[in-house]
Amino acid sequence: MSGWLKIVGLGPGPQAQITPEVAAALAEATDIVGYGPYVARIPPRAGLALHASDNREELDRARHALALAAGGRRVVVVSSGDPGVFAMAAALFEALEAGSAEWRRLDIAVLPGITAMLAAAARAGAPLGHDFCAINLSDNLKPWALIERRLRLAAEADFAMAFYNPRSKARPQGFARALEVLRACCGGARPVLFARAVGSQAERLTLTTLAEARPEMADMRTVVILGSSQTRIIARPAGPILYTPRSVPG
Amino acid sequence: MSGWLKIVGLGPGPQAQITPEVAAALAEATDIVGYGPYVARIPPRAGLALHASDNREELDRARHALALAAGGRRVVVVSSGDPGVFAMAAALFEALEAGSAEWRRLDIAVLPGITAMLAAAARAGAPLGHDFCAINLSDNLKPWALIERRLRLAAEADFAMAFYNPRSKARPQGFARALEVLRACCGGARPVLFARAVGSQAERLTLTTLAEARPEMADMRTVVILGSSQTRIIARPAGPILYTPRSVPG
Repeated sequence: MSGWLKIVGLGPGPQAQITPEVAAALAEATDIVGYGPYVARIPPRAGLALHASDNREELDRARHALALAAGGRRVVVVSSGDPGVFAMAAALFEALEAGSAEWRRLDIAVLPGITAMLAAAARAGAPLGHDFCAINLSDNLKPWALIERRLRLAAEADFAMAFYNPRSKARPQGFARALEVLRACCGGARPVLFARAVGSQAERLTLTTLAEARPEMADMRTVVILGSSQTRIIARPAGPILYTPRSVPG
Repeated sequence: MSGWLKIVGLGPGPQAQITPEVAAALAEATDIVGYGPYVARIPPRAGLALHASDNREELDRARHALALAAGGRRVVVVSSGDPGVFAMAAALFEALEAGSAEWRRLDIAVLPGITAMLAAAARAGAPLGHDFCAINLSDNLKPWALIERRLRLAAEADFAMAFYNPRSKARPQGFARALEVLRACCGGARPVLFARAVGSQAERLTLTTLAEARPEMADMRTVVILGSSQTRIIARPAGPILYTPRSVPG
C-alpha cells in the first residue's frame, strides 16, 4: 500500500496558527476527510477530494478515511485545534482497533495543532500557567454523573480547569448544572473566562466570576476556563490579564 | 512607547511545528529573551540581540524583557512548547503585576505553541483523547504534599495525566515517590509513556506499565503520560498505538 493517513490539527482558526508540517500534509493530500465546517477551511484545488460529514459521525468518518488510505490514497483527517484533544484522533484509533487487520499496516501519523484552551489562554494571559485539567462537558459519550464527579475532584485538587463543548442546543441543562456544582465547590468569586471563536472575526472574550456566570454565555464554539484558587487578574488600560502564578505558598 | 513584547512558544523542537505567527514575531524582533537552550534555537542576524539566561532566573528574565520593551524595543520572550504551560507567560505576568505601573501600558501578546504533552501524545497515538490533567512535578515552587494530593485526586477522577519536569538532578527522589503513589492508586498494569526530546534527533519513546516504570526513564527533557483506566494499546507491525477512547460506558 502506498497510501497514508495523517490526522492533523488546524488550530483554532487563523492560518497563522497552522503549523508548517500540517500545511505540508494538506498540500500533499489527495483526500480531506472531516466535519463539514473544518473541511470548509481547506481551499479546493484540482486533484483534491473533499469529504465533509456531519457532527456525531466520527466513527463512520474514521472508517471512511482508513478505507481510502488502504486503497492507496493520501488522506488527511482534519480537526479544529489539536486532533488528540476531544477530536478525531481517538475516534480514528477506535475504528482502527475494531476494523480490518490490514489497516494496522497503514502508514498513520498524528500531527498536533494549537488546541482551543491554549489559544484562549494566550488571548487572556496565562490562566493555565500552573497545574490544570481539561474536561469535555458533553455527556454524549459518558455518564453525566462522571462529569460531576470529575468537577468536584478537580476543584478539590485546586486545578485550573478548561471545559470543551460546554453547551449545545441538544443539552442546554448540563452546563447550568456544572456551574452550580462549581459554585458550590469553589465559591462565587472565582474568575471564569468564556472564550468564543478565538482567532476568528467573531472572537469574543468574556471575563467574569462564577457568581456572575450564566449558561447562555457559552455555546459549542466556546471554551471555558475556570481559574484555580490562585488565579489573579491584572487591571490594565488595554484590558485585564488573567493568569495563574507558577507558585503556591508552602 | 513604540516597543512591544510577545511571549511565544517555539513548540517542542522541529521548525515545522513553529506556527507562522511565531515565525513572524521572531522576524520582527529586535531582542530575543529566554533560557539559553531556547534562545540557541533562534538563528542570529544583524540587528537582533540575543539575551540568554540560566534556568530558575525566570523573574529576572521577565523584568529584563519588560524593561527592554518599555525602552522601545521589539522583544520576543521564547519558551519551548507553549508559553502558557509551565513556561514564561506566568512568570512574565508575575513580574508585570509587581513591577512599574508604566509596564501596564505596554503592548503585550502571548502567541501559543505546541506544548510537549500534545507533541508526545501525537507521536504515541491519542492518550489525551478523553479528560486529562497536566501536572508540573517540580516542587521548586509548590509543596511536595500538594503534588501528592493532586496525584491521588487525579487518579480518583480517572484522568489521563501528563507530567512535566518529572525529574532533575537536584530532585531525584520526587519522581520515584510519584510513581509509588500512582502505583498504589492505579495498579501496576496502567500504561505509561516516557517521551523524551520529542521531534528532535534524540527522540526516544518508551511505552511501559506502572509496574515496570523506573525513575531513571525520565529526565528534564521527558514528558510522561499516564493512561486512565480506559486507555488502550493497539499492536501493530510499525509499533504500538496508545490511545484513550472518547467514551466511558454508563
